[in-house]
Amino acid sequence: MENSAGRRLNTLIRHLLLQDKGSVQVLHPNGLSGERLKHAKSDPVIIGGMVLDIHAYPSIPAIPRTTTPGKVHYVVGGVARNVAECMSKLGTKPFMISAIGPDMAGNLLLEHWESVGLCTEGILKGQGIETPVVCNVFDVNGELAAAVASVEAIEKFLAKEWIHQFTSNIRSAPILMVDANLSLRSLEASCQTAQSGTPVWFEPVSVAKSKRVASIIEYVTFTSPNEDELIAMANAVSSEDLFSPIQRVDNDGSTQSIESFFLLLKPAIWVLLEKGVKLVVVTLGSDGVFLCSKGGAEFTTVDLKNTEPSHFGKQLSEMVTLNCRNQFVNTEKFNKSSSHLSVVHFPALPASVMRLTGAGDCLVGGTLASLSAGLNMMQSMAVGIATAKAAVETRKNVPSEFCLATIADDARRVYSSARVVFDQSVV
Amino acid sequence: MENSAGRRLNTLIRHLLLQDKGSVQVLHPNGLSGERLKHAKSDPVIIGGMVLDIHAYPSIPAIPRTTTPGKVHYVVGGVARNVAECMSKLGTKPFMISAIGPDMAGNLLLEHWESVGLCTEGILKGQGIETPVVCNVFDVNGELAAAVASVEAIEKFLAKEWIHQFTSNIRSAPILMVDANLSLRSLEASCQTAQSGTPVWFEPVSVAKSKRVASIIEYVTFTSPNEDELIAMANAVSSEDLFSPIQRVDNDGSTQSIESFFLLLKPAIWVLLEKGVKLVVVTLGSDGVFLCSKGGAEFTTVDLKNTEPSHFGKQLSEMVTLNCRNQFVNTEKFNKSSSHLSVVHFPALPASVMRLTGAGDCLVGGTLASLSAGLNMMQSMAVGIATAKAAVETRKNVPSEFCLATIADDARRVYSSARVVFDQSVV
Repeated sequence: MENSAGRRLNTLIRHLLLQDKGSVQVLHPNGLSGERLKHAKSDPVIIGGMVLDIHAYPSIPAIPRTTTPGKVHYVVGGVARNVAECMSKLGTKPFMISAIGPDMAGNLLLEHWESVGLCTEGILKGQGIETPVVCNVFDVNGELAAAVASVEAIEKFLAKEWIHQFTSNIRSAPILMVDANLSLRSLEASCQTAQSGTPVWFEPVSVAKSKRVASIIEYVTFTSPNEDELIAMANAVSSEDLFSPIQRVDNDGSTQSIESFFLLLKPAIWVLLEKGVKLVVVTLGSDGVFLCSKGGAEFTTVDLKNTEPSHFGKQLSEMVTLNCRNQFVNTEKFNKSSSHLSVVHFPALPASVMRLTGAGDCLVGGTLASLSAGLNMMQSMAVGIATAKAAVETRKNVPSEFCLATIADDARRVYSSARVVFDQSVV
Repeated sequence: MENSAGRRLNTLIRHLLLQDKGSVQVLHPNGLSGERLKHAKSDPVIIGGMVLDIHAYPSIPAIPRTTTPGKVHYVVGGVARNVAECMSKLGTKPFMISAIGPDMAGNLLLEHWESVGLCTEGILKGQGIETPVVCNVFDVNGELAAAVASVEAIEKFLAKEWIHQFTSNIRSAPILMVDANLSLRSLEASCQTAQSGTPVWFEPVSVAKSKRVASIIEYVTFTSPNEDELIAMANAVSSEDLFSPIQRVDNDGSTQSIESFFLLLKPAIWVLLEKGVKLVVVTLGSDGVFLCSKGGAEFTTVDLKNTEPSHFGKQLSEMVTLNCRNQFVNTEKFNKSSSHLSVVHFPALPASVMRLTGAGDCLVGGTLASLSAGLNMMQSMAVGIATAKAAVETRKNVPSEFCLATIADDARRVYSSARVVFDQSVV
């Protein structure tokens, strides 16, 4: 899938890895904030679920209908919460808007939030709210034996009235992330509040919930579906179900190449871009990520207002900028016509997998933290993948701490392996 | 199964229900405390597990390998904890000896314990202890789909060194209950401490754990197995596996009468009595209870030292005594030879069952609270069954509160339906 434009973009990526000049070049892409506001440092806003995950692992094979000896772990989770915690551990303090109850799970989530030094002001703590909790019992092989999710409180209590209380936070935020656990009304309220100029990242959560994008697609700047969520979202924003689920593994058991797999996903990706999404990040698990935009300008020119990286954020930015040097000084080289699709594939890194849960959330968290620290999208994506690698190597959803040198080095490896898989006109 | 002795005992029971005289007659049975100590009021001591039960109920049928929407409930549990909480709600404040960790489950259990006004001094709260928790996921029909129990902290941390710190509480207690969650060493340490004159109630917990009775059988005064635990215990204290599991329902699907079912259990019951247990309470679920002793003297003559019922305990005692009048003034009527087995069957009451868990623990808790309030074993058993009925009619292990009038009235109904199923020489 390397046509001449693809080769050109790949050459540029190699070029910037070899050169050693200048700092991050910030441009003003169409559709993102056109004006860099210097007047106030503001925190990214994350709206969505804070969830307690209960994981029960038997130590011997289970006998049906009885209790099996084993271990029970409590893991703080929830997509939005994981993303926010991950960001905070990479030096960006996000403002979290969520809802929990005055129960055991709520207390644990709140205490943990305070312990990592994050603001709890946006977290609604109400009588009558049952804190979202997912209870998972695994079998002795680590497969899910039975699981119940009690997360309706997010839809029921994280209402637009609560979100509206934080309008000024949202309007001054460099970026807003919403997860699809929100009700349609709350998703709309969040996006409409952000409309004045805060870019919106939509995290689809699950195939079923990803369809909620339909009512807010016009506001979405970034989204990060896996391949199944991508198909569901493309169908949801179309007038009919145009797309069928896509299998990476053929019927004969052979796995398709990244390039041919991309071609299968391309129509669904294009639908989202045509609806106004600036960047579609298709997550492929151990196969990495497709970063897709019209013309590729946003790869190097994401400009977020009101960012002022923390010390850690600056360190991250410096190390990654040093590792992943950016010399896309002339975006005129890209064909920014409305019919041009540019896609870069970022591979995942080999990892000693402890537990896959949380990896996708850390991918988003690492990317958002990097964008907030002033890195461009290509660099941020590389940091996101490095962060996801760190996440799968722990049992928690978000590692206790990140080693900046490791993240920067891993980001460099990802960045240097990224290559263009598509860069041509679609129509 | 009504022989002449049985008819005689039954007649006596009817007799005491019809007469309206006198108060509780306290005698001094062999093997219980021979001396009524008046000098100090002391609390019953309960040693065993405090456990958090997590119950997850799906609201729709589950799709395998995924999470199903539903509800998650946190229920404070653990056999010993349930018994102690039940006792406290019937006016007797027990002293609990247990071990929990400084985690979410431990905090919940401790806060609940404080909220019901009970002493936490005997509860070891240690770093490194994982609070016992049982995680249950049910299917949409209410059957257990998968469950993991993480309760090893009880065996590991509720050690004899901790128990020995409360020697004076145990020695002055009117009664000591131990549950079989304790390690063998801790069971032995508890019983040896009590040896000086505190009767011991052994709660078998499960078939597997009930076998731990073997090392402490010489100290056990009361025990409350179901039929399966009874068989396991009888085998454990015998030199070989003499007894096979007994089915109440025959191969042809017909259910045996209470009398013939008792005859199947009799050899196992007799083994425990021969080993020195004074009263064996065989719990039969919705079929009630067999109360078994050598010669039946203990039915009316349990004497616990250092009891001083609370106001509520006195009320309970008065109401039950009024309802279940006791005129067993002449225990000489009973054949107290060492070869004589006396068994009374107490039926259970019809109930609107919400959840069966906790019923057995409330049966023991109601019985222990009544004994501690000065009632005799026959009356206490009736209260125990009334308490168990109240327990199955709530979703909690122990009801939030008991209605004394209902308990007393239900106890009267149980008491008046009790009848002797066996009263003759065994050898």
